[in-house]
Amino acid sequence: MSKIPYRITLSEEEIPKAWYNVRADMKTDHRPMLNPGTMKPVIESDLTPVFCTELVKQELNVKDRFIEIPEEVREYYKMFRPSPLYRAYALEKALGTPAKIYYKFEGGNTSGSHKLNSAITQAYYAKQQGLKGVTTETGAGQWGTALSMACNYMGLDCKIFMVKVSYEQKPYRKAVMETYGASIIASPSNTTNIGRKMLADHPDSTGSLGTAISEAVEVAVSTEGYRYVLGSVLNQVLLHQSVIGLESKIAMEKIDEYPDIVIGCAGGGSNLGGLMSAFMADKLSGKAKPYFIAVEPASCPSMTRGRFAYDFCDTGMVTPLAKMYTLGATFIPSSNHAGGLRYHGMSPILSQLYHDGYIDEARAVEQTSVFEAAKLFAKAEGILPAPESAHAIRVSIDEALKCKETGESKTILFGLSGTGYFDLSAYMAYNSGTMTDYIPTDEDLQTGFDMIPKIPGIQ
Amino acid sequence: MSKIPYRITLSEEEIPKAWYNVRADMKTDHRPMLNPGTMKPVIESDLTPVFCTELVKQELNVKDRFIEIPEEVREYYKMFRPSPLYRAYALEKALGTPAKIYYKFEGGNTSGSHKLNSAITQAYYAKQQGLKGVTTETGAGQWGTALSMACNYMGLDCKIFMVKVSYEQKPYRKAVMETYGASIIASPSNTTNIGRKMLADHPDSTGSLGTAISEAVEVAVSTEGYRYVLGSVLNQVLLHQSVIGLESKIAMEKIDEYPDIVIGCAGGGSNLGGLMSAFMADKLSGKAKPYFIAVEPASCPSMTRGRFAYDFCDTGMVTPLAKMYTLGATFIPSSNHAGGLRYHGMSPILSQLYHDGYIDEARAVEQTSVFEAAKLFAKAEGILPAPESAHAIRVSIDEALKCKETGESKTILFGLSGTGYFDLSAYMAYNSGTMTDYIPTDEDLQTGFDMIPKIPGIQ
Repeated sequence: MSKIPYRITLSEEEIPKAWYNVRADMKTDHRPMLNPGTMKPVIESDLTPVFCTELVKQELNVKDRFIEIPEEVREYYKMFRPSPLYRAYALEKALGTPAKIYYKFEGGNTSGSHKLNSAITQAYYAKQQGLKGVTTETGAGQWGTALSMACNYMGLDCKIFMVKVSYEQKPYRKAVMETYGASIIASPSNTTNIGRKMLADHPDSTGSLGTAISEAVEVAVSTEGYRYVLGSVLNQVLLHQSVIGLESKIAMEKIDEYPDIVIGCAGGGSNLGGLMSAFMADKLSGKAKPYFIAVEPASCPSMTRGRFAYDFCDTGMVTPLAKMYTLGATFIPSSNHAGGLRYHGMSPILSQLYHDGYIDEARAVEQTSVFEAAKLFAKAEGILPAPESAHAIRVSIDEALKCKETGESKTILFGLSGTGYFDLSAYMAYNSGTMTDYIPTDEDLQTGFDMIPKIPGIQ
Repeated sequence: MSKIPYRITLSEEEIPKAWYNVRADMKTDHRPMLNPGTMKPVIESDLTPVFCTELVKQELNVKDRFIEIPEEVREYYKMFRPSPLYRAYALEKALGTPAKIYYKFEGGNTSGSHKLNSAITQAYYAKQQGLKGVTTETGAGQWGTALSMACNYMGLDCKIFMVKVSYEQKPYRKAVMETYGASIIASPSNTTNIGRKMLADHPDSTGSLGTAISEAVEVAVSTEGYRYVLGSVLNQVLLHQSVIGLESKIAMEKIDEYPDIVIGCAGGGSNLGGLMSAFMADKLSGKAKPYFIAVEPASCPSMTRGRFAYDFCDTGMVTPLAKMYTLGATFIPSSNHAGGLRYHGMSPILSQLYHDGYIDEARAVEQTSVFEAAKLFAKAEGILPAPESAHAIRVSIDEALKCKETGESKTILFGLSGTGYFDLSAYMAYNSGTMTDYIPTDEDLQTGFDMIPKIPGIQ
């Protein structure tokens, strides 16, 4: 065939008609979530007071490999999907590498990231259930922006607890969410019991994702007609995000390519889980052996240095417990501009796949080296990446440079999950040389590990 | 055929191979620019000290209908083009209109607007000429961002005079330009004679595009190996931007559509000039009769209330004079968030086409009604528009609502020239109800008109 284009774009009709549920293929399913009251595996009725009923069914679905995407959701997807797969010709040239680098760009919508894929889906099911609204938390603001857009489409009220430090540092993110009609509350807030307790104990708290989750859940379960929605970690979210990987595989097939290495940043796991989906299916069935790398910040190293244990998903310890790689629910990472990667835990699915060796490697990278890569990428490819996505860029560049040494022409696929338009203060810090790195000591981490619950007979 | 998709995307190979030069088809060419020293029509040697030589040739080219796009420029175009043509199904539904609304979205690149089309081209020719760098001005920052990306690609130095009010209000725009390696100077500055004079006369000046142009030109002509580049107004810029209209026509042909109405915002004219190109060709040759509407802010109404006269292109009165619709080179528009539409003049090509009736209508709209339209559009279509582009949205909505009254199913095409990611303070002002409108009085305008030079025998 002729030269591979810069952008491989599928037609609207090629948007997948079903999501891929990796759990149906996993050799070992992840351990069940536990009800924090009984410490027994959660059942549907434990979760329906918190989450939309259809989403609970998806959360617990271990048998269906494919779950149909509702026609109305697909119509909304068509407003911004299929997303393009880029061949990084300019980056390859800048690196002088024989590697072939591809990236799936999910930032080409107003929310600026892949989060919209799940936000629209969750808002759709909330609407179908006849709810009035939903609550959630947001850190960097990508998820909050996506959810505010989705709720606007569906005519739902949307209450967003925004980690206070982001609320104060990102007024423009807040402005976008408000333009779409969402209510934004700085967390910790005095609107919830958990927020008030946190403020009493730590009046100067700048907040954390874990606390914001606790507040959002509290409001959802105590308000008639509301449920809580979450932008990562959960099985349902990885399910919705599988559209990224499914599209990527179709696009690569069109140009007769298949990735040797698949690289994604991992905070709660929604981006990597989505990107790898179709390729993990091949790996689990033995059809292919792509090498998967999860990239995380050295400042919040849940996979590379965390424990594989049952832990709470939130700081307030009101959510079910999940078996996952965790730094402890009270771990509050040092200030790091990649707000979307500051979560203490990791998707149970990704945790299990990593534990079992299907995700081959987790790699922690430092912030300044991430921004060095971000800038190199921006200057070569023209797209300003989100700090989160730039973690994947860092490792993709490193792998491409290895190819340069060995002369191998590997095919690398990474996820460019979002743009950096709302992270320019971080770029300013990098440009001015004031950005620093932070790696927690073993002692720092021990404080969090000490808070991981010890459950007799379970861990 | 089956249902028209949400996005009509061309293949890379369908990017035009030549720009369209509308001057070759105009019934009456625009009046020549005048050398401000001699008041005689400019010739190539008048302009080459200021502009790149090849660009001067394009500026003065009145005979070639098509000018080939260099292969290297097309390669850069492929990194972000073809841009998608959207069918605004959601907006149509929100309005309940029988009109069919299409928009060409030029904001899907990191510069956030159509400006990159000409920036890459101008930087390419500067590089071909062996220059060290270029100077320019930027208001809202769209052009400066595009040029900083383009100069980065070509390895050129880039000095940008940024209107002081934007420099102070848009630190993130500045951060993007600096990430791409440009030097940003707040204008008026003490680095030029014109800037120093302006500061001496008006120490508190927050700057204007006209002054920033004067400063950038001064530096270009007085620095070895530098030339000045401009993001709008000039013939060469409209030429490069013709790629927008050429692609739009190809895309519409694919779905068997043709616009009844073509709508674009017009500040200096590059967006509207680009969008209308291929359709204006049809109108000039008598093949079709699309109705063209130029939209401008009521606060800076050069076409609707300005004079059609020879005037300077800059406040410092050092540039050639152009016959155009103008409010006077000293006209400084009141604070208006659509920074890209605050220019006192208008492209000579568009001015002539409007004067001769080929652009059917110019319409001035007020800021709050523009943001009302911007928000309606964002909520329906999911894309947060730039304030400039939202002027075109306002009029497109108004035309679609007229169709609702009359029952006509007109086909409307408008230019969504950019995104609003860097204009969120304006959205915040609108959301909080503090945004106000401003319409200059006739007396306000007279002050500017009084400064339009009176040239014996010419006007």
